[in-house]
Amino acid sequence: MLNRFARVLPIVHWLKDYNGGTFVSDSLAAVIVTLMLVPQALAYALLAGLPAEVGLYASMIPLVVYALFGTSATLAVGPVAVASLMTASALGGIAQAGSPEYVGAALVLAALSGLILFAMGVLRLGFLANFLSHPVISGFVTASGILIAGSQIGHILGIQGGGHNLLEMGRGLWQQIAAINPVTLVIGGGVLVYLYLCRRFLKPALVAIGLSERLADLSSKAAPVSAVIVTTAAAWFWDLGEAGVKLVGEVPSGLPSISLPPLDPAIWSTLLPAAVLISLVGFVESVSVAQTLAAKRRQRIDPNAELIALGLANVGAGVGGGSPVSGGFSRSVVNFEAGAQTPVAGALTALGIAIATLTMTGLLAYLPKATLAATIIIAISTLIDFSAIRRTLSYSKADGAAMLATIVLTLVHGVELGILVGVGISLGLYLYRTSRPHSAVVGLIPGTEHFRNVSRHDVRTDDATIILRVDESLYFANARYLEDTVLELVSARPRLKNLVLACQAVNDIDASALESLEAIDKRLAEADITLHLAEVKGPVMDRLRRTEFCRELRGSIFLSTYEAWRTLVNATPAKAKEKPVTQGG
Amino acid sequence: MLNRFARVLPIVHWLKDYNGGTFVSDSLAAVIVTLMLVPQALAYALLAGLPAEVGLYASMIPLVVYALFGTSATLAVGPVAVASLMTASALGGIAQAGSPEYVGAALVLAALSGLILFAMGVLRLGFLANFLSHPVISGFVTASGILIAGSQIGHILGIQGGGHNLLEMGRGLWQQIAAINPVTLVIGGGVLVYLYLCRRFLKPALVAIGLSERLADLSSKAAPVSAVIVTTAAAWFWDLGEAGVKLVGEVPSGLPSISLPPLDPAIWSTLLPAAVLISLVGFVESVSVAQTLAAKRRQRIDPNAELIALGLANVGAGVGGGSPVSGGFSRSVVNFEAGAQTPVAGALTALGIAIATLTMTGLLAYLPKATLAATIIIAISTLIDFSAIRRTLSYSKADGAAMLATIVLTLVHGVELGILVGVGISLGLYLYRTSRPHSAVVGLIPGTEHFRNVSRHDVRTDDATIILRVDESLYFANARYLEDTVLELVSARPRLKNLVLACQAVNDIDASALESLEAIDKRLAEADITLHLAEVKGPVMDRLRRTEFCRELRGSIFLSTYEAWRTLVNATPAKAKEKPVTQGG
Repeated sequence: MLNRFARVLPIVHWLKDYNGGTFVSDSLAAVIVTLMLVPQALAYALLAGLPAEVGLYASMIPLVVYALFGTSATLAVGPVAVASLMTASALGGIAQAGSPEYVGAALVLAALSGLILFAMGVLRLGFLANFLSHPVISGFVTASGILIAGSQIGHILGIQGGGHNLLEMGRGLWQQIAAINPVTLVIGGGVLVYLYLCRRFLKPALVAIGLSERLADLSSKAAPVSAVIVTTAAAWFWDLGEAGVKLVGEVPSGLPSISLPPLDPAIWSTLLPAAVLISLVGFVESVSVAQTLAAKRRQRIDPNAELIALGLANVGAGVGGGSPVSGGFSRSVVNFEAGAQTPVAGALTALGIAIATLTMTGLLAYLPKATLAATIIIAISTLIDFSAIRRTLSYSKADGAAMLATIVLTLVHGVELGILVGVGISLGLYLYRTSRPHSAVVGLIPGTEHFRNVSRHDVRTDDATIILRVDESLYFANARYLEDTVLELVSARPRLKNLVLACQAVNDIDASALESLEAIDKRLAEADITLHLAEVKGPVMDRLRRTEFCRELRGSIFLSTYEAWRTLVNATPAKAKEKPVTQGG
Repeated sequence: MLNRFARVLPIVHWLKDYNGGTFVSDSLAAVIVTLMLVPQALAYALLAGLPAEVGLYASMIPLVVYALFGTSATLAVGPVAVASLMTASALGGIAQAGSPEYVGAALVLAALSGLILFAMGVLRLGFLANFLSHPVISGFVTASGILIAGSQIGHILGIQGGGHNLLEMGRGLWQQIAAINPVTLVIGGGVLVYLYLCRRFLKPALVAIGLSERLADLSSKAAPVSAVIVTTAAAWFWDLGEAGVKLVGEVPSGLPSISLPPLDPAIWSTLLPAAVLISLVGFVESVSVAQTLAAKRRQRIDPNAELIALGLANVGAGVGGGSPVSGGFSRSVVNFEAGAQTPVAGALTALGIAIATLTMTGLLAYLPKATLAATIIIAISTLIDFSAIRRTLSYSKADGAAMLATIVLTLVHGVELGILVGVGISLGLYLYRTSRPHSAVVGLIPGTEHFRNVSRHDVRTDDATIILRVDESLYFANARYLEDTVLELVSARPRLKNLVLACQAVNDIDASALESLEAIDKRLAEADITLHLAEVKGPVMDRLRRTEFCRELRGSIFLSTYEAWRTLVNATPAKAKEKPVTQGG
């Protein structure tokens, strides 16, 4: 009973060992993550086209919910860059950015993706996320990073940006190039340069003056806080809003109220596809961060429990006034390095955000949007990884093609189409490859019991017996191809008496392939050739044994290829002969 | 040059050997097929909701075009039952059955599916048809047969039928049950019983009175002709049209005029999905009939050339006033058994239909629709194969599930959704299986160089070295699963020093899986375990050799699992030990 309970509420596991020391560690981590999260929450709300407070609300209830249900001790949940970009893209066609309808749709999007994640967790469908291949995810994140940077250029220049792909963004910027606000540009450009320099040089400098590696790293990651404080003070002191600098403006003080998101079925069904994509991408990113961090401490996370936890966290966002959330990479790393021991750190971070929302919104009103834009650009610059393209292409053209297509389509058409086509290409290429399975005629390596490809190795073969190794599971998409391959082989060998299919690489034979095997057996029989099988695996044999094919097969099913060779070739030794020695390929 | 020409026009191959004997054989076959095709062409036009002449037109130009480009000597092209049902379903939402717009849309559908098939042939995409698995096709054909029978019941009863699934059909029949026309029912029911009796008893009876097996078979298949003649004569003699019996009515005499189908882009784009489905289903059926018949005479057909031939035949239907065509099963068998030697038989059949259209339309006006409905029901009764469901389910639950879903959805929702969901389920289940690959810890069979599953065989194992055989290609969908499997194995074995991945069943390692292997190597290294590979296949090794993973792997890559065992286990003989003999599974 306790075990079942613990599976649903992982808190049961760690709470019994909780003590003062753990609490101090968690509290320290929470303070540092809070400092990092306040500007990020505002910035990602800006990126998603939402009022600033939505980002803060997304950093409260979801964090508490995740602390209760999550299996990772260190995953820092909240608004993240890629999900915010996808939110902006999903809501763009529904309402005017920033309007009450737009905010309502954002809550629907959070609740909907929460319900999707929760359902996937309950149905144990976590494996679906595996269909987002590494190259597609990596290409998608790189392209998203570029789009995010592009979407923030307008804020740095003090003009109206907008657009959901590079073309729209470029057009938008070009049309307003005359309206650039120089004061905004000074602030945005200044913060950009400052944050870049901090990232490059602050940590080594701090290490040089004697700080520990970890402390130096954490301090340099708090640089955006100083930029926020300085530019906010400057905007207040010189009243820069009057000079045309766009500020965050009035943020309602106080905690979010709990209420259902709008229940208009039309909005829910319109947002469904986008919610599915946001759920999957958010889940894949969260799980990979959580697994990386867990492995470092030899802990494990449970992907299906994570689905439930992230799902509930997003439902929490939807009823608690927030936009979609997932596990953020940089914040999770900071949380880990700052010493977070349990999910309590996440709950305490939510407390920190709540205190900030109650006390600092008056000050945040003067924060220039250009500062937030610069924060975003520096934060996502680590997402962009061009070297992965070269690396992937050099290993596999198919993977490289899927990656390039994802990047190009995301950039020129937007996030949804980019990732969908990427997944489609990955799947399509995989299916195409398995639909034309590699197979090889093999021969015996003299002096061993091993068989290798006749065209790559110097091996013994026999005129009356041919051994065909099939290098793929047999299923509907390649069943006919096997028929063709066998018939072609046979038609070229008039003296053939036995054909052995070596099945060590055949992990499954489905009903279509079974029919093809029956057809092969029948056609070979008409040509007076006997079909044999060898090295059929246990699970495959279990099923074959029940079939008519197996009962009517005139040939044998050999345990090993060598046994087939000994029986079929050594039984007719007159015909066996050494293949002339040639240069093996 | 001639060779290239011959690839496009197979006629070059056989025309040089053509002689009087071949012509006599072809002519005889053409006469028999024409007798069979006239009522079928009218019946399938009725089934598709089209005027009778559209069926006749679909039996002229397309047959000539196929004779020029087809690679099968015996495939009888023309209107077929399943494609006609799919045509009715596709056009149902576009216009009133029988209206000029409806006929125009049918021509568009033919031309469109012709262009799709042609493009697939040119791009060598014939492999796409393989994704319609045997169980899905078989289930779809069975369900279509039931729907076709259901759609004809109204004609037998003399009432208005209609509907594209069983529910709609049932409702339509129920609402009009009071309007049953008794004379029609007598004709329809009489023909149904007559044709059934002919099918059951005529052939044995003819054999009994001394006819040859083949002649008896062909004669019994001409039974519908006698039913057509008798009921047409009866309708004319007693003027049954006045008694409420629905007749075929005025069929325009003369040949079809060549003209472009309507070029309204809205209709073309609306019909595109249906055209894709009709193309694929028609192609799969045609190719499987053609291959079966070709194999009997040790001939071969070229699937990509067939795509081009069927594509052009359908374009011919579209510009020649006909509905979509494909290779019909029963007519092709008759053509084959009647002795057709070359595609000339098909061209002569077209000539026969042309003669019938020019001379007999006045008579056909009196043909009762109930006769045609009875012909259809008997013809499609061979399509319905319930035993396949049981057979498939007993072999594979996954295939059985795809088949059942296809049948149920086709029956209750219609043809398009049925086949789409069937294909989706087949693919989904295949991907699900490969995303959780089978793997087995293997041990050495004493006295051999062979390794088998430790849980199924009595084999030697070693505490410090574990050999994991991976039974699937490694790709994005199962990469993470492999990581989990390896880490779980390792965590249960504290004395482990070496982990060997036996890769004889790994036919591919994609970029995602490569990253997982890197992650596995890194994590094993942290636990002081060395990762080795064995039996990596040639093509896989070629690619791995270029990677950083291969350069940084601390373990070895062994040619065979036995070599790995000899090196790793026999080098530390103190630890090697015989596994206690247990009952193998």
